[in-house]
Amino acid sequence: MKSGELIGRTVVFREPPSLLGHASVGCRKEGEGPLGGSFDYLCADAYFGADTWERAESAMVRRAVELALDKSGLAPSDISLTFAGDLLAQCVGSSFALREFGIPHFGVYGACSTMSEALALAAMTAAAGYADYTLAATSSHFCTAERQFRTPLEYGGQRPPSTQWTVTAAGAAVLSPAGPGPYITAVTPGKIIDAGITDANNMGAAMAPAAYDTIRAHLDSLGAGPDRYDLILTGDLGAVGSDILRDFFRNDAQELFNHDDCGLMIYDRDAQDVHSGGSGCGCSASVLCGHILNGMRAGRWNRILFCATGALLSAVSSQQGESVPGICCAVEISNSR
Amino acid sequence: MKSGELIGRTVVFREPPSLLGHASVGCRKEGEGPLGGSFDYLCADAYFGADTWERAESAMVRRAVELALDKSGLAPSDISLTFAGDLLAQCVGSSFALREFGIPHFGVYGACSTMSEALALAAMTAAAGYADYTLAATSSHFCTAERQFRTPLEYGGQRPPSTQWTVTAAGAAVLSPAGPGPYITAVTPGKIIDAGITDANNMGAAMAPAAYDTIRAHLDSLGAGPDRYDLILTGDLGAVGSDILRDFFRNDAQELFNHDDCGLMIYDRDAQDVHSGGSGCGCSASVLCGHILNGMRAGRWNRILFCATGALLSAVSSQQGESVPGICCAVEISNSR
Repeated sequence: MKSGELIGRTVVFREPPSLLGHASVGCRKEGEGPLGGSFDYLCADAYFGADTWERAESAMVRRAVELALDKSGLAPSDISLTFAGDLLAQCVGSSFALREFGIPHFGVYGACSTMSEALALAAMTAAAGYADYTLAATSSHFCTAERQFRTPLEYGGQRPPSTQWTVTAAGAAVLSPAGPGPYITAVTPGKIIDAGITDANNMGAAMAPAAYDTIRAHLDSLGAGPDRYDLILTGDLGAVGSDILRDFFRNDAQELFNHDDCGLMIYDRDAQDVHSGGSGCGCSASVLCGHILNGMRAGRWNRILFCATGALLSAVSSQQGESVPGICCAVEISNSR
Repeated sequence: MKSGELIGRTVVFREPPSLLGHASVGCRKEGEGPLGGSFDYLCADAYFGADTWERAESAMVRRAVELALDKSGLAPSDISLTFAGDLLAQCVGSSFALREFGIPHFGVYGACSTMSEALALAAMTAAAGYADYTLAATSSHFCTAERQFRTPLEYGGQRPPSTQWTVTAAGAAVLSPAGPGPYITAVTPGKIIDAGITDANNMGAAMAPAAYDTIRAHLDSLGAGPDRYDLILTGDLGAVGSDILRDFFRNDAQELFNHDDCGLMIYDRDAQDVHSGGSGCGCSASVLCGHILNGMRAGRWNRILFCATGALLSAVSSQQGESVPGICCAVEISNSR
């Protein structure tokens, strides 16, 4: 009773699950960016009505999940399984958010690649008949991430040009075993790729080799070139990482002409002082669950490859001199099955 | 092309995947306990040849994965997908361990329920035809966990009687879509259950309601009583949590006569000064991948329900006065399909 084929490293679904409702939630800075109009909800400050930044992050996930359920016409009890995670130690952002809903839960951790991973697993679960509806969600918050990974905000450290700005946003999407699309048609999980980068302020360079490895493997599995897609969308490589990714493809004598990066799309880099671009789990999740999936429904893109990218580090691993491995999971989303 | 049926909250596999090789690795204290003889490898000190405790934890995972592959007669390149996580912030214990192998990877986080979650997802993936072989692994380390969740070891804080001792151990298991068994026949994912416990030194009480919720749901899905199993095995409820779990079942007029807990099995509580018992992802993982699966192969048990239990907290959530929700995923393992 196979529900999919493993071709190379790629899982191709026999009966692709359909994306039902999806929602994105952001904060003021995200609302001021070029994609501001695509958010379902924007909070005016970083607290989302809560008293700590960590609780704000949970409130944001909760709002995104509620909106995705609303837009799907479903109640929490209709969902068989959630896949969610976030950047906070022990993933408390998502688990404290989801305890309100009473839905069976699998916590996932792929750093900023979490939305790809959660969507991939939600699709694999729905396509196999293991669930009625599944839900994928993730988030990031500038203030919680800075103190988690770098220095307290109060320290006011200087940010080098390769730094990215952690997006304060969340995204959630509901999947159904059948429906009118868009469909998740194939998935390529990522390998942990360590290029030896030790600069915790240059995540783009740390993640680009993983993005290349996964996209290369995905295209090779399907015997396709980049032109299979209307859009190849990485998560948060930013300006530095996107350049490196395109260089890797040039070494293969291929031009990644249809590439864009959520970290480059979500802010106006000149006007919003975000250096190399946006980052964080919530960056790719909110861009996908708003701007991109809305655009696919409007026919702007018909087949995309969504490749959220993650940097695997902790404050402790950095303090101990470890390098920063990257990971990237690719999810093919198509308007036709 | 359904690969399984969703009955209530429980996924029942049409073609149950088979557990191939599995291995457990521990440290001196684990070797001195009643299950010492069941470990595949025991390290004499807490460093496993590394220079920090965090690197020691990664070394331990690596060793468990290598041994599980060896015992399966497989190379890393034979594995389609790993599912692994650990208690360290951003799961660096497992991700830094697995970067050596070049296997596609999905990071998971279920606190001390991680082995159940990883096994469940590895089984769901293998049973659906998405993978050739899959691997589930997790770990915990007394020294990394204490400074992650509580106080620096050097502080020498007094431990209340409800405290558990984080096990320094790792477990890994390889799954194949077909084989001679033992089989993973069904899986019930856990809900996040918050009983309002705020004492980070009483994890058993925090997790017991989640264990009850999942085991109850699993038995109800299958229309079965506890006597369906030769053994209902929780992860690390310890003495305090195990008593609470059995009380919950007594309220349902059922005696959980065949219950045991990995946290009670791994140490001699009187002789080894571990208060309420062992805990940590590596507790249930190493007990399952050594003593239990070896015992199933020897015919000591024919059908068990493995229910690793997790407490969802971080140092930050505790400092902010949050309660500690629990989660528990149940995995049915049987010698017959």
